[in-house]
Amino acid sequence: MDGQIPDLNEDFLTNGHETYLRHLSVDCVIFGFHENELKVLLLKWKNDGPWCLPGGFVGKEESLEQSVNRVLKERTGLDNIFLWQFHVFSDPAREKKKDMLPFVLKSVWLKERFISVGFYALVEFSKVSPEADMLSEECRWWDVDSVPKMVYDHNEIFQKALHVLRMSLNDHPIGYELLPSKFTMPELQKLYETILGKSLDRRNFQKKMLALGILERLKERKMGGAHKAPYLYKFNKVKYDKALKQGLKGGF
Amino acid sequence: MDGQIPDLNEDFLTNGHETYLRHLSVDCVIFGFHENELKVLLLKWKNDGPWCLPGGFVGKEESLEQSVNRVLKERTGLDNIFLWQFHVFSDPAREKKKDMLPFVLKSVWLKERFISVGFYALVEFSKVSPEADMLSEECRWWDVDSVPKMVYDHNEIFQKALHVLRMSLNDHPIGYELLPSKFTMPELQKLYETILGKSLDRRNFQKKMLALGILERLKERKMGGAHKAPYLYKFNKVKYDKALKQGLKGGF
Repeated sequence: MDGQIPDLNEDFLTNGHETYLRHLSVDCVIFGFHENELKVLLLKWKNDGPWCLPGGFVGKEESLEQSVNRVLKERTGLDNIFLWQFHVFSDPAREKKKDMLPFVLKSVWLKERFISVGFYALVEFSKVSPEADMLSEECRWWDVDSVPKMVYDHNEIFQKALHVLRMSLNDHPIGYELLPSKFTMPELQKLYETILGKSLDRRNFQKKMLALGILERLKERKMGGAHKAPYLYKFNKVKYDKALKQGLKGGF
Repeated sequence: MDGQIPDLNEDFLTNGHETYLRHLSVDCVIFGFHENELKVLLLKWKNDGPWCLPGGFVGKEESLEQSVNRVLKERTGLDNIFLWQFHVFSDPAREKKKDMLPFVLKSVWLKERFISVGFYALVEFSKVSPEADMLSEECRWWDVDSVPKMVYDHNEIFQKALHVLRMSLNDHPIGYELLPSKFTMPELQKLYETILGKSLDRRNFQKKMLALGILERLKERKMGGAHKAPYLYKFNKVKYDKALKQGLKGGF
């Protein structure tokens, strides 16, 4: 990165620690699912700077949850998205080459060490319209299998979030905001396969999903296909929400 | 709490922020299992102060993991315990009645707001010998069903840890450090029932545990009981460790 970010507020660089807690940041890993693709939302800093996760700081009177929602909105335009806390990144050496970033050098408080709390979310990416903020020249969805090299430890934060998202399928329902309100079992399976990045056995998947007790089979079938019309399902929202909070239990 | 803590170092109160990061603390929820009892380790502040979770601060050059291990050792004597990060507590109003604690009033940096990272561990409590530190008059195991009212939001931190521990059984193996190296299925079931705080169906439990693929049935049986000698099992440590990292999968 050469040159400074022209729009970066001088007051923020000099006095940001009067508004924000020292040493603490939040970073967002926003996964987007659409038509069998899983992507992640990244920003590129201005002046041909590095790619990064959308992140920011914690206001002196904010909870982390309040700050991460504000930060995500300010930096990408995304609003009203439920974000899950997943890990705190605190390696004292995590901010690699931070002292080479010109705007950091101009600021006493940004030069200090930051511990970052990671949050993630999974959205239907055709339903949201992210926009780059004044610090960034681009805001783009990247395929999870080909993310670029990012600043600091952001590649590690992303990988950890992907691992946690995949693990969460073992114990949490998924799909309510990602699928149409009525869907077929193959559509649900494709969602799981896309997130997990691997194919699943059709019969085992169906058996397991039905056993979870969060699906209702409808009387109507999906019409229009070449094969026998498949059954349509919908989520039982009460059981789905209960499982979100308490876990799918898995038999215990 | 009336009176101050006599041993609390003046230098710590005045200059602690030169050693520790501002605004950031760690709190430990140490669960202890022994003979069908689940307990949690709490400290009682000196001068008849409130009960609390063992907690402390993050050194300027420490990772959270380093700090929480140091803190647990300093405050309870427990060493070499693997602690899991489980949640960050950041409600701006979380430190209730902090301004009534005399030693806090004497310190500029302790008066500031703290965000606390919660860690938990589960140990065999007959194998460890906790000891109160100089800030505490007592260090005691409490039954998880009857913990006392604690300082700040420590009761919430404890409840969240208990919830996370119970949820973790759905996706992570447990028992290697808690059971003898050879154990019976009823002994394993009792461990799960104790942690979950409820009884489980014997046949379903056995079926589910065997399906996880982390147990090996031994040729020898447990002798000495009144009934037919039950089979002995041990964990397959390679598969157990893999499941700890990757999850028990649950079929996906």
